[in-house]
Amino acid sequence: MAQLVRVHNFTVSRDGYGAGEGQSFERPFGHAEPADFFAWAGGTASWPNRTAPGGSRGLDDYLTRDFHRNIGAEIMGRNKFGPYRGPWADHDWDGWWGAVPPFHTPVFVMTHYERAPLTLADTTFHFVSGTAAQVLAQALAAAEGKDVRLGGGAATIRQFLDSGLVDTLHVAVAPVELGRGSRLWASPDELSDRYHCDVVPSPSGVVHHLFWRR
Amino acid sequence: MAQLVRVHNFTVSRDGYGAGEGQSFERPFGHAEPADFFAWAGGTASWPNRTAPGGSRGLDDYLTRDFHRNIGAEIMGRNKFGPYRGPWADHDWDGWWGAVPPFHTPVFVMTHYERAPLTLADTTFHFVSGTAAQVLAQALAAAEGKDVRLGGGAATIRQFLDSGLVDTLHVAVAPVELGRGSRLWASPDELSDRYHCDVVPSPSGVVHHLFWRR
Repeated sequence: MAQLVRVHNFTVSRDGYGAGEGQSFERPFGHAEPADFFAWAGGTASWPNRTAPGGSRGLDDYLTRDFHRNIGAEIMGRNKFGPYRGPWADHDWDGWWGAVPPFHTPVFVMTHYERAPLTLADTTFHFVSGTAAQVLAQALAAAEGKDVRLGGGAATIRQFLDSGLVDTLHVAVAPVELGRGSRLWASPDELSDRYHCDVVPSPSGVVHHLFWRR
Repeated sequence: MAQLVRVHNFTVSRDGYGAGEGQSFERPFGHAEPADFFAWAGGTASWPNRTAPGGSRGLDDYLTRDFHRNIGAEIMGRNKFGPYRGPWADHDWDGWWGAVPPFHTPVFVMTHYERAPLTLADTTFHFVSGTAAQVLAQALAAAEGKDVRLGGGAATIRQFLDSGLVDTLHVAVAPVELGRGSRLWASPDELSDRYHCDVVPSPSGVVHHLFWRR
């Protein structure tokens, strides 16, 4: 089976923003409240960062747990990896995720600034430049036949969408308005010429949008 | 993580029947039309019996593909395994699924009649008698830490439900009335004292019911 490029559990506001304005160490999502974005996933049994037992096993859980299924590599933008900009030498930053990041595969971080690979537990971050297609070629090779997850943020997903490189997307639309920030779309209808979409409201309040290529 | 007992992709009519009356070799689901029951899953990219490429990758596909995730064994009733009743010596029957059954794990077939194990490709069918709890104990051991899928039919699922042995159920309610046959329930509300349930209508016409323990 062909390798797919998949977006999973990417949450946006009703007005299409994947993060707010003013990202910082203290506010990874800028003026957006992370709880507004991730409560739907955080409440599930399969949430990767869950530390207590329990959690729901309904619709949101089916979607949350697909994050890991048959994934061999992730691609993310530098602004997902951390709040700092510019050359890496200026600081010592190993990502948001602590000593055991929830990826467990190679991760390709798109950046214009060179940096040596960073290994934390079973995740290795590679810092790469180039076009979306060039980075994807590296990730597909590293995934060894499995699929590649496109992790975000919104600008990175847009870049891959605009290059026609995304096969499926799961975007959860949260019941909140942001007004400004990093925007995925003005409306999900922007993708309807190229993708089928199932729109599935969840009892948790988000509306899951499941896209696949026409 | 504890092993779970899971029902997946079990389809019933609006009036709760998992199969019609009069099962036979020619009509595995009795007077029910298999297409009415399985079109929602058969149209997806992940349907195990799919031979052509393509297929949808929306909501129905998320549910269909969960069939295999972290499953180490299956339990089924004899009437799922085949249309014949009584001692096995009377006939030569190796199941509906041909030389490569879609299970790929040990399968425990509940029957009052002894029969030697049957191996087809990477699936081995064990023919076992005993209570639901006794059969489950065997399946949990065979699953080696993974979950156990409870495959049906309706009477087998009822037996396990009535013994309190099922952790999660995915039941798809198809837009068809059967009137008679093998019944799972008169209404999904029968489970609401013991289970949470997300009710999720699909664009394909079925209504997914996702249960997990309270």
